[in-house]
Amino acid sequence: MKSYTISDHEFQERVRKLQALMPEMKVDLLLAFSTESEPAYVRYLSDYWPSFETAAVLIPPSGDAWLLIGPESLTYARSRSRIKRIEQLRDFRESSQPTYPGSQMPEWASLLREIPFKACGIAGWHMFPQAIYAELGSTFPNTKLINADDLLRRVMIKKSPAELDCLREAARLSEVGLKAIIEKIKPGMTEVQVAAIGAATMLDQGAEATAYPVWCCSGPNSNQAISRPSHRRIETGEIVQVCVGAKVSGYSASIGRPLVLGTCPEDVRKFTNVGCDAENLTFELMRAGKPAAEVAKRVHEFIRQAGYGDTILYGPAHGCGQMECEYPFVETSSTFVLEEDMTFMVDIFLANKEMGFRWEDGAIIGANSAEQLSNFRRQVMVL
Amino acid sequence: MKSYTISDHEFQERVRKLQALMPEMKVDLLLAFSTESEPAYVRYLSDYWPSFETAAVLIPPSGDAWLLIGPESLTYARSRSRIKRIEQLRDFRESSQPTYPGSQMPEWASLLREIPFKACGIAGWHMFPQAIYAELGSTFPNTKLINADDLLRRVMIKKSPAELDCLREAARLSEVGLKAIIEKIKPGMTEVQVAAIGAATMLDQGAEATAYPVWCCSGPNSNQAISRPSHRRIETGEIVQVCVGAKVSGYSASIGRPLVLGTCPEDVRKFTNVGCDAENLTFELMRAGKPAAEVAKRVHEFIRQAGYGDTILYGPAHGCGQMECEYPFVETSSTFVLEEDMTFMVDIFLANKEMGFRWEDGAIIGANSAEQLSNFRRQVMVL
Repeated sequence: MKSYTISDHEFQERVRKLQALMPEMKVDLLLAFSTESEPAYVRYLSDYWPSFETAAVLIPPSGDAWLLIGPESLTYARSRSRIKRIEQLRDFRESSQPTYPGSQMPEWASLLREIPFKACGIAGWHMFPQAIYAELGSTFPNTKLINADDLLRRVMIKKSPAELDCLREAARLSEVGLKAIIEKIKPGMTEVQVAAIGAATMLDQGAEATAYPVWCCSGPNSNQAISRPSHRRIETGEIVQVCVGAKVSGYSASIGRPLVLGTCPEDVRKFTNVGCDAENLTFELMRAGKPAAEVAKRVHEFIRQAGYGDTILYGPAHGCGQMECEYPFVETSSTFVLEEDMTFMVDIFLANKEMGFRWEDGAIIGANSAEQLSNFRRQVMVL
Repeated sequence: MKSYTISDHEFQERVRKLQALMPEMKVDLLLAFSTESEPAYVRYLSDYWPSFETAAVLIPPSGDAWLLIGPESLTYARSRSRIKRIEQLRDFRESSQPTYPGSQMPEWASLLREIPFKACGIAGWHMFPQAIYAELGSTFPNTKLINADDLLRRVMIKKSPAELDCLREAARLSEVGLKAIIEKIKPGMTEVQVAAIGAATMLDQGAEATAYPVWCCSGPNSNQAISRPSHRRIETGEIVQVCVGAKVSGYSASIGRPLVLGTCPEDVRKFTNVGCDAENLTFELMRAGKPAAEVAKRVHEFIRQAGYGDTILYGPAHGCGQMECEYPFVETSSTFVLEEDMTFMVDIFLANKEMGFRWEDGAIIGANSAEQLSNFRRQVMVL
């Protein structure tokens, strides 16, 4: 099995790039926060990804970054972290707030004595816990705490060759998961069982984890844009929305397809074909130099003209990388232009009251076209 | 397959119990927050559990609760929620902050016009996002926001018969996952592959999800208290720490065992036997009326006398229910007394620099003893 990894050098370069941008944002400290289900920033900067507990990476104006973890993760973090200095803080313990009688962990005041700061940028702003925010504010009353998501976004938005390889492999494994589902799906299986076939196969074949809590939703459940699989049993002649994705060295891909077991009703065929054509159109439009808003407008116009305008929930593509869904978003309101080595999930989700589906495959933006990370059976599958 | 569910009536009773406690805490509104990886409170009150997006349940002083969700979860939430009134707020969108041009969602001010309040209790205090906290503070400047985790803990700490049945089933399925691993584990498999065997089997046999990101960690990785499985290949003669757990209708169990493939080194056998004896001792001590601190002190004393005092990281048991690890914690500093229908994971994790292991099985506290939720092969397994 080829090993897909990011080099220590590349991890260090990420920190250097952020340090170069910090003066522009007028911050002299950067704190990038992550949780079990939102591991992106900490994984990107340290290769460590929390579970149960939370974590952060602390970046001083120069020199090496620090990894901040919770009370139970030291041996785990040591085995994964590319950052040598690891500090444990009670604030990064589980949300149920276990007590650790007798344990000695530093407080923020003593920890940050080494790095005096005036303004701390916080990345992960919209999930950063108010309890830690309040504690930082009261411990350092003469400092500012500033939303620094934009700093991370600017560094993360274009992918390196090693990152692109991880994404390609994650997409390949996502296809492997989908193929296993197509081979084994049978009427009477539960949605959980179908999703589990995909997950188990991806993990067996080299994924480190699923990219997100993968799902299959069927019949009346199929119109769920975000879902979790239920114990509903799949029936013939109904639409089944399958979304599976693999994670490789922190990089997350996904593949989404509608399926029908038995005979495909004509209305399902017509509706899903419009979505499929919209996905192909999105790929045709995406290339370096194209304004993202133009892509979204053209694709939405196509869907409207086909008579399905009221089934649109969001734009035709979103960024991907560490998270299966991350900044930036291709929407009619977007103000950015596509650039080479940006990566997206083309994600056509359409739904009405009775049914819905998702066509999803990854894209790497190139000078004259977009590389498709997966394209396996991009057609209505009647099994 | 028997269906394990909590009745609508029981969901409503939970809200009523919280409403009865609200005056005592001097709050006239309660907001219980959850995320994809910390779904406990929202799931407990609504049966909905977020993915990608976050969510909250809003409880007024009387009448029905409201479910607050993000922009993409409406059809999913409608298929799951026991709470009829569902409102969408941008604040509960994904942390990457997608834009939804043209979409209309209420702001906090208009949403809460129906429920004037002076003091809002927030449950999930330690993970509640500072961005939402600040917005609530500025929108309602004359109100207080108070940590209300204690209210939820008091209502959730003792389990109903239906909850106990869900936990028993989750533990049964966790054992099924462990048994599959024992049957199929082979030298040369990666940790991910071993953990995936357990996960796939639990999902195929009726679990709705894994209780947490399950793992297997081996050899030098085995001393990780919290872990995620890696691509390390398992070898003969080394200790393998297996932790698998199933989730059933929101209730999470776990089973932890050390295994050795081939021949078990004598030091591994001796060390793991001490842990196993400590787990059995914990079960013997746990019953209604017993001070939790006494259990922790006795078990830690036993481990110390066996010569392994410096391998202790935390107390011998922690609460379980919605989360595999939740309040309360059995520690030497605990101030509570065990009561009937409290539920715990007995969790003996011991580690030194070279290796570690976890013995873990669930417990339901009874009048004169603790019911063991699992006990499959509680012995050092040499396979």
